[in-house]
Amino acid sequence: MNVTLRGRTRHYRSVSFDARANSVRLIEQRLLPHEFRIVGTRDFRETARAIRDMVVRGAPAIAATAAYGLAQGARAFRGQNLRVFARHIANVCQVIQSARPTAVDPVNAMNQVRTRMNTGGTVAERQSLALAAATDFADASAAECRTIGEKGVKLIRDGMRILTHCNAGWLACVDFGTATAPLYVAQEQGRRFHVFCDETRPRCQGATLTAWELAQQGISHQVIADNAAGHLMQRGEIDLVIVGSDRTLGRTGEVANKIGTYTKAVLAARHRIPCYVALPRSTLDWELKSGRDIPIEERGEDEVLGTWGSLERKQGEGSRKKGVERAYVRIANPTSRARNPGFDVTPPELVTGLITPVGIFKPKELWANRRALGYLA
Amino acid sequence: MNVTLRGRTRHYRSVSFDARANSVRLIEQRLLPHEFRIVGTRDFRETARAIRDMVVRGAPAIAATAAYGLAQGARAFRGQNLRVFARHIANVCQVIQSARPTAVDPVNAMNQVRTRMNTGGTVAERQSLALAAATDFADASAAECRTIGEKGVKLIRDGMRILTHCNAGWLACVDFGTATAPLYVAQEQGRRFHVFCDETRPRCQGATLTAWELAQQGISHQVIADNAAGHLMQRGEIDLVIVGSDRTLGRTGEVANKIGTYTKAVLAARHRIPCYVALPRSTLDWELKSGRDIPIEERGEDEVLGTWGSLERKQGEGSRKKGVERAYVRIANPTSRARNPGFDVTPPELVTGLITPVGIFKPKELWANRRALGYLA
Repeated sequence: MNVTLRGRTRHYRSVSFDARANSVRLIEQRLLPHEFRIVGTRDFRETARAIRDMVVRGAPAIAATAAYGLAQGARAFRGQNLRVFARHIANVCQVIQSARPTAVDPVNAMNQVRTRMNTGGTVAERQSLALAAATDFADASAAECRTIGEKGVKLIRDGMRILTHCNAGWLACVDFGTATAPLYVAQEQGRRFHVFCDETRPRCQGATLTAWELAQQGISHQVIADNAAGHLMQRGEIDLVIVGSDRTLGRTGEVANKIGTYTKAVLAARHRIPCYVALPRSTLDWELKSGRDIPIEERGEDEVLGTWGSLERKQGEGSRKKGVERAYVRIANPTSRARNPGFDVTPPELVTGLITPVGIFKPKELWANRRALGYLA
Repeated sequence: MNVTLRGRTRHYRSVSFDARANSVRLIEQRLLPHEFRIVGTRDFRETARAIRDMVVRGAPAIAATAAYGLAQGARAFRGQNLRVFARHIANVCQVIQSARPTAVDPVNAMNQVRTRMNTGGTVAERQSLALAAATDFADASAAECRTIGEKGVKLIRDGMRILTHCNAGWLACVDFGTATAPLYVAQEQGRRFHVFCDETRPRCQGATLTAWELAQQGISHQVIADNAAGHLMQRGEIDLVIVGSDRTLGRTGEVANKIGTYTKAVLAARHRIPCYVALPRSTLDWELKSGRDIPIEERGEDEVLGTWGSLERKQGEGSRKKGVERAYVRIANPTSRARNPGFDVTPPELVTGLITPVGIFKPKELWANRRALGYLA
């Protein structure tokens, strides 16, 4: 999507590749929204570190990063021996995979790249095929999000006020995003609407990343405390809810997503406000039989007991330079502890529809449409 | 309630009076939870400033502060002339009242003090009566909260996990608090329970003040993000919700309280978890006929776009001294704006009961019990 820097607007993807420098190029997301910077990794080990250290985050975005990282590793190989090359590739995959060991998307992405690469007869052919496969993977990922936007755009009518939660935007994908894709396509089509971004405590991805994305695209929006959505719905100020999904169960239609999503779905149902979930096919889980079996990660207490933000410093206030500095402040009583579940599960009866690249389905229709949705078993 | 400082535990009220120094003594609440300090005002003008600058906050607490401030002003008068004294008193009331012009509780409190004071025949008698009346007002306010605790304690059973929102604790009252009073009485009776404190963005009074109060009392508790309560209810980890009230409509049973209260009540109803509101009689509004007529204050955007917290500084990092420093950090995207409604209104069908000093009522029973609840019209 577009980013404007010093008055110049350019199109960026969250992940791309510089073939001449053999470098994976990433938006340094830990600096957003306070600074926009592109970093280039020099080798596959640096790419793995960037995944581990959350320079890049979001399942589709780290999958594309892993695919490019594998191509980067393949292209750095010097020699002609296919068996030595194969050992090298196995090591590259191992290093990248272990950067975020619980994520399945990077593994799937690298498997796609390897399969195509192995059709080559020489090291040089395989190096070339690896980059072609990684590029195709990233392009297909961006295209899938774009298609989510095209399928979902009919939900966005002129004058609507739309609530979103967390960041299911282009930063988390290669481009377009999932929950944001219908918004971006609606904007292209000239529709006017307003977005309320839940700040999404504790990590505040709504206030930081989603608000930044919408501001860059020039979409009218306001940040609200997570506590405020119920009141706005009660006063008739929200017409539609769109969120993303970390995992959706193909068998039941249950949706796991960032903590607080369930609450918004409960409120939307009470006020008869349509509540949609946008998702790429890679987040569909066809195995689990119940949302209660989805493991809910308990994250560190410090996220709840305080927050990261930017501190304005005047010159001479102890910092070497004037300007903005990232800082963690403790909010809570110093002797208190916290609970911090990272995700929750929304039952299908609270979800009006699932916006996928092959169409909008009711949660209970997923299983009947499993072939179209990519279920291979 | 109790506060432990350097290993010594003492009982404190949020507001008290030092007759020898003719000084109103207040807990400096802007420093909590990071520092506990008592400040004494030297004259009624300083007392008014402490109200205006939010050294003390919470309707019952500022009412008692105003009552003491009037006594303080009366006692500072030098002379015997009753007419000069009366002019002085009118000025004192005016200065204190204008410190928080929209609040009605300080005016009511000062009217009570004046009525009793004016039964005295000399300046000296009136000065003495003013202090007696202010002391009685504060004592009655503390006693009313204590009685809320005694009426509500039967709701707290051993092993319960209780959710509370914002701070309706003793810091906001003279002592005991409203939503916290049943907890403190249950603790006295040896019951064991666990409290989840909603952090209560944007001002985080749950994470700061309520968590501090519970920690001081040694009550088991954890802070949670406002987003997490729905998930905990879904997993069966919350048995009871108790909140306070800024204004409850005696004619309809609607409850105005800190933003996010409505959301918790909606979630509790969905999970069939009892949801109680604790309130002193002074917050009952017998005039308004609909919750839609309650003005909802839109507060400053900076509360949502960032937060206050404490920053840990190492020596030499620009601060003169080592230790904790209060700081505001910006969380949200710098070019984004916010909506910040401060309160919301919960309809009566979501409220299981109202805990008052004269008993627990269903919201629809308030009007029938209006005489017992203090309605004088």
